[in-house]
Amino acid sequence: MSEWQQTKEQFRKYVKTMKSYEEAIGLLYWDMRTGAPKKGIPGRSEVVGELSDVHFRMSVSEQMGGFLDALTQPEANAQLDAVTRRMVEECKKDYDRNKKIPPELNQEYVVLTSKAEAVWEDAKHNDDFAMFLPYLEKIVEMNLQFIELWGYEGHKYNALLDLYEPGMTVAKLDEVFATVRARAVPLLQAIAASPYQPDRSFLAQTFAKEQQKAFSLFMLKEMGYDFEAGRLDETVHPFATGLSPNDVRITTRFLPDDVVSAVMATIHECGHALYEQNIGEELYGTNMAGGVSMGIHESQSRFWENMIGRSGAFWNRYYGDLQRHFPGQLDGVEAAAFVRAINHIEPSLIRIEADELTYNLHIMVRYEIEKGLFDGSMKVADLPEIWNSKYKEYLGIEPPTNALGVLQDVHWAGGSFGYFPSYSLGNMYAAQLLNTLEKQLPNVFELVEAGQLLPIKEWLADNIHKHGKLYQPSELIRRVTGEDLNPEYLLGYLENKYKSVYGL
Amino acid sequence: MSEWQQTKEQFRKYVKTMKSYEEAIGLLYWDMRTGAPKKGIPGRSEVVGELSDVHFRMSVSEQMGGFLDALTQPEANAQLDAVTRRMVEECKKDYDRNKKIPPELNQEYVVLTSKAEAVWEDAKHNDDFAMFLPYLEKIVEMNLQFIELWGYEGHKYNALLDLYEPGMTVAKLDEVFATVRARAVPLLQAIAASPYQPDRSFLAQTFAKEQQKAFSLFMLKEMGYDFEAGRLDETVHPFATGLSPNDVRITTRFLPDDVVSAVMATIHECGHALYEQNIGEELYGTNMAGGVSMGIHESQSRFWENMIGRSGAFWNRYYGDLQRHFPGQLDGVEAAAFVRAINHIEPSLIRIEADELTYNLHIMVRYEIEKGLFDGSMKVADLPEIWNSKYKEYLGIEPPTNALGVLQDVHWAGGSFGYFPSYSLGNMYAAQLLNTLEKQLPNVFELVEAGQLLPIKEWLADNIHKHGKLYQPSELIRRVTGEDLNPEYLLGYLENKYKSVYGL
Repeated sequence: MSEWQQTKEQFRKYVKTMKSYEEAIGLLYWDMRTGAPKKGIPGRSEVVGELSDVHFRMSVSEQMGGFLDALTQPEANAQLDAVTRRMVEECKKDYDRNKKIPPELNQEYVVLTSKAEAVWEDAKHNDDFAMFLPYLEKIVEMNLQFIELWGYEGHKYNALLDLYEPGMTVAKLDEVFATVRARAVPLLQAIAASPYQPDRSFLAQTFAKEQQKAFSLFMLKEMGYDFEAGRLDETVHPFATGLSPNDVRITTRFLPDDVVSAVMATIHECGHALYEQNIGEELYGTNMAGGVSMGIHESQSRFWENMIGRSGAFWNRYYGDLQRHFPGQLDGVEAAAFVRAINHIEPSLIRIEADELTYNLHIMVRYEIEKGLFDGSMKVADLPEIWNSKYKEYLGIEPPTNALGVLQDVHWAGGSFGYFPSYSLGNMYAAQLLNTLEKQLPNVFELVEAGQLLPIKEWLADNIHKHGKLYQPSELIRRVTGEDLNPEYLLGYLENKYKSVYGL
Repeated sequence: MSEWQQTKEQFRKYVKTMKSYEEAIGLLYWDMRTGAPKKGIPGRSEVVGELSDVHFRMSVSEQMGGFLDALTQPEANAQLDAVTRRMVEECKKDYDRNKKIPPELNQEYVVLTSKAEAVWEDAKHNDDFAMFLPYLEKIVEMNLQFIELWGYEGHKYNALLDLYEPGMTVAKLDEVFATVRARAVPLLQAIAASPYQPDRSFLAQTFAKEQQKAFSLFMLKEMGYDFEAGRLDETVHPFATGLSPNDVRITTRFLPDDVVSAVMATIHECGHALYEQNIGEELYGTNMAGGVSMGIHESQSRFWENMIGRSGAFWNRYYGDLQRHFPGQLDGVEAAAFVRAINHIEPSLIRIEADELTYNLHIMVRYEIEKGLFDGSMKVADLPEIWNSKYKEYLGIEPPTNALGVLQDVHWAGGSFGYFPSYSLGNMYAAQLLNTLEKQLPNVFELVEAGQLLPIKEWLADNIHKHGKLYQPSELIRRVTGEDLNPEYLLGYLENKYKSVYGL
C-alpha cells in the first residue's frame, strides 16, 4: 500500500470511529426519550456530554488536520474515489468551522443556551417575554460573533442557513417565499370564505390506544419499513432516529381522543425512517450515511404524510382497514368525508399543529424575523410586536399572549437559528419530487389506491435515499427533478388539492 | 490548589470519563439484549468494541501511568482521602495487569474466544466435544501464558480467581468446598431417600404472562426496588445491569408453564439491583461505584431468592397475593404446600436449573476441573470423562451426552475461568450474612411475615451496598459478620431447612 493509500485507510477508520460515537450517543438520546428511569437522566446527560466532547475533539484534532492536509493535496485528492472525496470535503468543512471558534467561546455558548432553555420554559409558562429577552439578545449576539469568525458570503444569515441546508441562501429563500406567500395567502382566504367546510365532528371520539398502535404497525409494514432494522415506541413527541442504516427507530404517540394524530405522526416518521434505512451500503460507517439536509429529510416525511397519506387514493385503499381497527366507530362515515376532514385547513397560532398550507406561513414569520435579527433590521426587544403583526398579516389572527406567540417554540432558546426554513423547504421539495415521480411512474396514485406503496418507496430510495450525503441538496434536487428548487410545484399541488376539498 | 491536589482532581475526572464509557457500553449491551433490531446487532457490536477499546486504552495510558506514579508516592498517597486512595489502588491493579499483556496477544485472545463461542455452540448442538477440543486447549494455554505474565502467588489458578473474587485462593476454596461437600452430599442422599417428597403437580398449569408480570412488579415494589432508578424488561435470560446507581435495570422471563421461574428470577435479579441502587452517593462517578466482587454480588441475589424468597415466612405473607394474581388456579393449595414445592431438591444435569443445595455440587465439579487444568493435573482432552465421573460422585447422576455434560456452559468458550466459584461463594456469604442479620435484627422472619422487607433492604444497604468496592470481599465479610468466610452457616441453614421440608 502506498503512503497515500495508508492515509486514506486511516482516515476512513478514524471517521468510522467518529460514527461509532454518534451511534452510541444516538442510542443514549433515544433511551432518555423512550424509557430511561428519571433519576438516571442527569448522569446520562453528562455521559452524552463526555462522548460528544470526544467526538467534537476528534473533528478538530491534529490527527484530523493531518488527514485533511494530506488528502486535499491536488494529486492525492484526484486519486480518491468519489465517496472518500466527499468524506474529506465534509470533514474539512466541519474542521474549518469548528477550528474557528475558540473553545472558551463555545463553552460559554453551551452554558448560555442550556440556561436559556430553562429560562424560556419559565418565561413561556409565565407569559413573560421580558424574562427571556436578555438571554435571547445574548444568543443572537453570540451567533453574530460566530458568523464573523466563520465568515460568510452575502447575507450573514446564510452562515446559519448553511448549518441545516447546505448552500441555501437568503437570496433564494426571499425569492421562493415571496412566490409562496403571494399565492398561499389568497388561497387561505378563499378557503376561509368557502361555505363548503369539512365536517370533523365524527373524529371527536375515543379511539383505543392498542388499536391505534395496531394500525400504526400495519401502516409501517405497508410502507415497507423494515422491522428487522427498526422498532416502534411511544413518546410524548414523535421522532425518528437513525442510529445506523440497520437500526432506525420510530416513535409515535397515541392520543385517545385523536386517531388522526397517531396515524399521521407514524406515516411522517416512517418517511424519515425510510430515508435512513435505505442509505446505500457503500456509505455505511462513513459520514455520508445519513440525510443530506434537514430540508431534504423533511421532504421525505412530508411527502409521505401529506402527498400520500392525506390523499383520496390512499384512503380509498386504507380506510376499510382503519374502520376494521375501530369496529363500529367510523361505520357511517365515507372515505371521502374522512379525507376532507383530515385535510381541514384553518389558521392557528401554534406551528406544530398547523395544516400543510398554513404551515408555510408560520415558517415565513420565523424566517423573516431571523433574517431581520441577523442583518440588524430588527431588535430582539421588538419581537413580540413584530411577531403579532406578521401573524395578523399572513394568517389573519393575532396571539392573545406571548406564550402563544413569540415564546411558543424552544428553538431560539437552544440557539437553533436557520433551522425553521427546512420545514417549508421540505414541503416544496416534496411537491417537486411528486411531480417528477408522476412523470416517471405515471400511475402513482393508482398504485397507492391498490395498496402498492413499495414502488414509491423504491423510487425514493433509488433517487434520494441511497445517495446519503453524497450530493448537496440543490444538486440532488436538480439530478432528480431536472431543475432547481421551484415552489410552483407546491403551489400547484395545494391549489389543485384544496380547490377540490373546499369546492373553490 | 497544590500540584498534588490538581493531579488528584484530574485523576478523578479521568476516572469519571472512564465510568461514562462504561455507562454507555452498559446501555449498548442492555439494548442489544432487550430489543435492538436484529440487523443492527453486528454494527452495534463493533461500536461496543470501539468504545471498549478506548476504555481499555485509557486504563493503560501514559496519562493514567502518570496519575498513578504521582498518587502512589508515599507523601501524596498518605494525604489522599480513603475513597481516592482506593480508586488509585484499583486503577493501579488494572494498569499493572493490563500493561503486562502485549496488545497483539490480547487481540489474538479476543479473536480466539469469539471464534470459540461460535464453535462451542455448534459443538454443543452436535454433541461433538472433539470439535471444541482444540479451541478449549488453546484458551487454557493462553490463560496459562497470561498467568505467567501477570505473575501469581501459590496456585496459578489464584490469578484467575482474583479476577472475579479479589483475594480468593485455591487454599481457601479447597478448605470451604471440602467442608461443604462432606455435609452436602450426605444431606442430598438423605433427601433422596426421604419418603416425604413434595407434591409439585399443582405447578403444572398455564400462568398468564401478563399476571406473571404484574406479580413481578408487585414483588419489586415490596422489596424496595426504586422504579425511578430502574425498569423491568423481558429477556430470554434474566439479568440485572447497573448503568449507574440511578439507573439499574432488571430483566426477567415469563414462562407460561412455570410461574415459579419468573417469580424467583425477578427476586434474584432484584437482589443484584438493590446492591447497585444503594451504592453510597460519595462513590458515584468513581470506580468504587459497583459491587465489590462476583461472589458478594451473588450473595445479594441468592439471599433474596433463597433465604427470603423461598422461606415459609415469605409465603405466609405473599401467597395470598400470588393466588389473587391467578384467580382460581391455586385455590386448593396451602401456602405450606407451595413452599415445599418450590424447595424441591433433586440432582439434575443442568446447573442453571439446579436447586440451592445441589447448585454447590455443580460448582465444585467445575472448580475441581479448572484447578486441575491450571496446575497441569488434568488435560482438556480428558474432560468429558472427568466431568462424568465427578457428576456421578457428587450428584449421583451421569450425563448421557457431552452436550448435557461438559459442553453445557458457554463460560469456558469465552475464557471465563475462575468465575464459577462465585456462585457457591454467594451462597456461603448469603447464609453468613443472614446469621448476622438475625442477631442484629432478631425478628427478621417476623418482619418478612408482616411484609416488612424494607428494614432488611436497609440493613443490607448499610452493611454491604453503600460501601461499593471500598473493601475487599474478605474484609467486608469480616467487618459485617465479625469473621472470615465460613461455610458452616450455609450448611447449618441447608440442614435445618431441608430437615423440615423433607421431614428428615
